[in-house]
Amino acid sequence: MYYVDLNSDLGESFGNYTIGMDEEILKYVSSANVACGWHAGDPIVMEKTISLAKEFSTAVGAHPGFPDLMGFGRRNMAVTPEEARAYVKYQLGALMAFTQSKGMKIQHVKPHGAIYNMAAVDEQLARAMCEAVYEVDKNIIFMGLAGSKMISAAEKVGLRAASEVFADRAYNDDGTLVSRKLPGAVIKDKEVAIKRVVRMVKEGKVESINGNDIAIRADSICVHGDNPKALEFVKNIRETLIAEGISIRNLMA
Amino acid sequence: MYYVDLNSDLGESFGNYTIGMDEEILKYVSSANVACGWHAGDPIVMEKTISLAKEFSTAVGAHPGFPDLMGFGRRNMAVTPEEARAYVKYQLGALMAFTQSKGMKIQHVKPHGAIYNMAAVDEQLARAMCEAVYEVDKNIIFMGLAGSKMISAAEKVGLRAASEVFADRAYNDDGTLVSRKLPGAVIKDKEVAIKRVVRMVKEGKVESINGNDIAIRADSICVHGDNPKALEFVKNIRETLIAEGISIRNLMA
Amino acid sequence: MYYVDLNSDLGESFGNYTIGMDEEILKYVSSANVACGWHAGDPIVMEKTISLAKEFSTAVGAHPGFPDLMGFGRRNMAVTPEEARAYVKYQLGALMAFTQSKGMKIQHVKPHGAIYNMAAVDEQLARAMCEAVYEVDKNIIFMGLAGSKMISAAEKVGLRAASEVFADRAYNDDGTLVSRKLPGAVIKDKEVAIKRVVRMVKEGKVESINGNDIAIRADSICVHGDNPKALEFVKNIRETLIAEGISIRNLMA
Amino acid sequence: MYYVDLNSDLGESFGNYTIGMDEEILKYVSSANVACGWHAGDPIVMEKTISLAKEFSTAVGAHPGFPDLMGFGRRNMAVTPEEARAYVKYQLGALMAFTQSKGMKIQHVKPHGAIYNMAAVDEQLARAMCEAVYEVDKNIIFMGLAGSKMISAAEKVGLRAASEVFADRAYNDDGTLVSRKLPGAVIKDKEVAIKRVVRMVKEGKVESINGNDIAIRADSICVHGDNPKALEFVKNIRETLIAEGISIRNLMA
Repeated sequence: MYYVDLNSDLGESFGNYTIGMDEEILKYVSSANVACGWHAGDPIVMEKTISLAKEFSTAVGAHPGFPDLMGFGRRNMAVTPEEARAYVKYQLGALMAFTQSKGMKIQHVKPHGAIYNMAAVDEQLARAMCEAVYEVDKNIIFMGLAGSKMISAAEKVGLRAASEVFADRAYNDDGTLVSRKLPGAVIKDKEVAIKRVVRMVKEGKVESINGNDIAIRADSICVHGDNPKALEFVKNIRETLIAEGISIRNLMA
Repeated sequence: MYYVDLNSDLGESFGNYTIGMDEEILKYVSSANVACGWHAGDPIVMEKTISLAKEFSTAVGAHPGFPDLMGFGRRNMAVTPEEARAYVKYQLGALMAFTQSKGMKIQHVKPHGAIYNMAAVDEQLARAMCEAVYEVDKNIIFMGLAGSKMISAAEKVGLRAASEVFADRAYNDDGTLVSRKLPGAVIKDKEVAIKRVVRMVKEGKVESINGNDIAIRADSICVHGDNPKALEFVKNIRETLIAEGISIRNLMA
Repeated sequence: MYYVDLNSDLGESFGNYTIGMDEEILKYVSSANVACGWHAGDPIVMEKTISLAKEFSTAVGAHPGFPDLMGFGRRNMAVTPEEARAYVKYQLGALMAFTQSKGMKIQHVKPHGAIYNMAAVDEQLARAMCEAVYEVDKNIIFMGLAGSKMISAAEKVGLRAASEVFADRAYNDDGTLVSRKLPGAVIKDKEVAIKRVVRMVKEGKVESINGNDIAIRADSICVHGDNPKALEFVKNIRETLIAEGISIRNLMA
Repeated sequence: MYYVDLNSDLGESFGNYTIGMDEEILKYVSSANVACGWHAGDPIVMEKTISLAKEFSTAVGAHPGFPDLMGFGRRNMAVTPEEARAYVKYQLGALMAFTQSKGMKIQHVKPHGAIYNMAAVDEQLARAMCEAVYEVDKNIIFMGLAGSKMISAAEKVGLRAASEVFADRAYNDDGTLVSRKLPGAVIKDKEVAIKRVVRMVKEGKVESINGNDIAIRADSICVHGDNPKALEFVKNIRETLIAEGISIRNLMA
């Protein structure tokens, strides 16, 4: 039997600012990556997001990012591994207070934006973040880009790793994502994108941008819910996966 | 046998900025109130402070404050009880990540600065903060001004309360602190201050600014360690207490 | 001949977060109050907002607020007059860099949210803010609640004052706004609201919540453009004013 | 006749945190680079620093940095040129409000920390920052590392450039600074350092780390005043320069 997790970033509103259709997307995903107040989110938003996730029985992960609200955590910052370690602990702990209040557990940690991209290729940074999670709670799963340094670091540190794939992104022969600056980086044909995902889950393979079949592990598929079209796409992915005999379930199931 | 806790605010450095003689004061106090990154402190500072506290076997508490680094959390802000509840959870959780990493427990929560002063007289605010702590971990002690709304709220919510007294402050007949704007608010004679503390611990009494004896409960004495003179005073208090047969021990002992 | 200014808060987006229909509302108002990066706005947003205002020939004012992005500057903070003075200078100067780059002048300063409400009744605070503006550029107009301490402080300090009125708010007999917590504080009937505004401009009078006619000076009417309904209301106000022979013009015209 | 400017970073305190011996160093330098509230400084500190600079007749420059108070602006951030342009305008404008209040002019802009280092080698970034200054006030001087992209960008944009040299740093053959990670990067012998500076000013030459004489332009020498030893060194440099017939004067003199 096949199964896969669907994850989405949530709780990215801040103060008077609202982003995302959290209540809608929660109907379709099995795991929620919750912003922790640095690149997005605030304590009131975190409390509401955790309540919503509980209501929908969605598994919850911390989604730590850079201290850069103005840049939404999407700009590379030259932090040291020691800083990254402390930043992950801080944000993970902050979210834990809200899950603990509701009798829930943190399922996973998935870094956000620029720190995710940096850790995908920087072993030291990835390792520092994994160690942070391990030291706080070694039962938490570390979610990162399939085949990246985050996955190998998590395993070395002793954490369970979850490999994340993207439906709408092209892959290089070595399993890295094709840079968004290059042509063909984004798969625009929605049906093609969904077929690729089904194959990743069932066969553990995807066709690279050069036309070669490469191995890829798909524990979780990243989807977005910040606009009605994105939501429609998530619904389609979900329905197709189920129709293909792939059940949607979170990482702890 | 008599005993009392000595507490001090620590971990108030931030980034490139250093405040406090943390390594010195830790030799004398039994409990440390650790800033949680809002009014002061940052994740790197928190990690170091928790390590130091472990080294000195000092009990650790969270010291949440307003989101006002520029004002060091000392300016009243009109937050709602709902906001205060979420803010306390966030900061308490963030610190928990660092204690959990070291196999330590959070002993207590003591609000900082303006939110401490506001909660001392605002039952709703005090209650919201106590509920926050209770929901995260009902074994944590809530430390607040002796005789204030914080103490009654903690008890109503079901938390153990710790009553804090000040060596160098004058008290009104109703047990509240004399406003710093009024003459006589601060006890400048160090010997008098120490004698008052000894009496608070041994007899549960203090002379009010009007010359009346009033009842006061002293579970913990607040001391400061941000300059050499303050440190000297702490040493004196400690030695006098011990000479008077009062042992210094944290709130869990 | 009658005339009045229509003002609206703009440039309140921040980083990845968008608020307000700035390009739409700019078609209808004569003055824009531009957020300065503290309670809302950021340098990129400020640059765009100033460009838009130039394109629409809308007069521009600084809209300084509390250092409280999480609370959108709507929570009272106990700042000192000295702090308020420095905060207004900082934010006004920051905006001036963008107007100066476009060869534009700052027409006015209108405080935002909680600091506006506090300065309306606190003479010292109002005076400090007016002095800040005067010291930076004494030709800038200070916009505040009609009849409030902001208006009297501006005049004492030597600034030109602009009295702002609200179409949809009830007034007490002394000219202050009826608290939003009380019934009848908000005029829900749009036609009634518009008629009241016309009378304020033409007769300098408004009926108080107690049914008494009181004097009120209306140099500028505050309108909002953060949703399609609000925008519709602004269009209606504008058309009615013009139909009534009242021209819409900014404070320098 | 020879002359040179001595510049130092000032106004780096923040809220309750104090850094730097501003009142001392102001006795010895001719130009002050004032932090603008992003990587350091706040409006109250800026107001005080500008007052002090006026008292000592020291020329004032804006010292804009990254929005990274926690990292003191010392960590590289991947901002776009458009962002850098807006950030420089914002910070420059904010400082201008304080100089304008005192009837003073901004003499120069010198980027801080990581954005200085990045702009030294990134032409696009350097150009965006210079354009920001030019658009706000084309009479302001742009101070940057001698021989770097900042100097060439300033000249291309039409600003007067001021070349900054370091007394205690080794230079490569191409005029760039030897990385602090390499041996010999820092000149520890104070007398040697001072002699090198004298030669840079008088001959326009310095010996590179490889023993070759290279051309270098020294309009301003960067000195620090954050501790008593640094202050002593500044005094020595100043006295030696004067004894060598080199007068200390700001960039506008």
